[in-house]
Amino acid sequence: MKAHVYVTMRRGVLEPQGRAVQKSLENLGYTQVKGVRIGKFIEVELDGVSRQEAENILEEICRKLLANPVIEDFRFEIVEE
Amino acid sequence: MKAHVYVTMRRGVLEPQGRAVQKSLENLGYTQVKGVRIGKFIEVELDGVSRQEAENILEEICRKLLANPVIEDFRFEIVEE
Repeated sequence: MKAHVYVTMRRGVLEPQGRAVQKSLENLGYTQVKGVRIGKFIEVELDGVSRQEAENILEEICRKLLANPVIEDFRFEIVEE
Repeated sequence: MKAHVYVTMRRGVLEPQGRAVQKSLENLGYTQVKGVRIGKFIEVELDGVSRQEAENILEEICRKLLANPVIEDFRFEIVEE
């Protein structure tokens, strides 16, 4: 079973990597780019679990390891059974 | 206009950060997790451009700055006009 996890900085929390990229793009002439925020896109493969079990595991590992709930939001989706 | 960009390591290229996370999950007892690959999820905001112009800009900035085409793949989608 395959899942995609998205981890993003919460709105209101400064995301310095994206800010640096935006500044670089501005210097390269891409003044139409007004905002860049960089998060994580995580592909997870699970074996021998039901959809419900997979969702429980994903919720847990996001909270424990993949995201920092104080400053980051996460969401996930099962993309392949 | 808002776009989402996904940057992932090419298949066959070792992705050490994901491998480390997978090992940690294994140690925590999540043996059902067989693979983890970590890429980037980038939110880009563009102003004063048509959809076609936005797509051209996104293609260019992915090649020039957001991804390393030698080892990474990228894809993007306009999510808000």
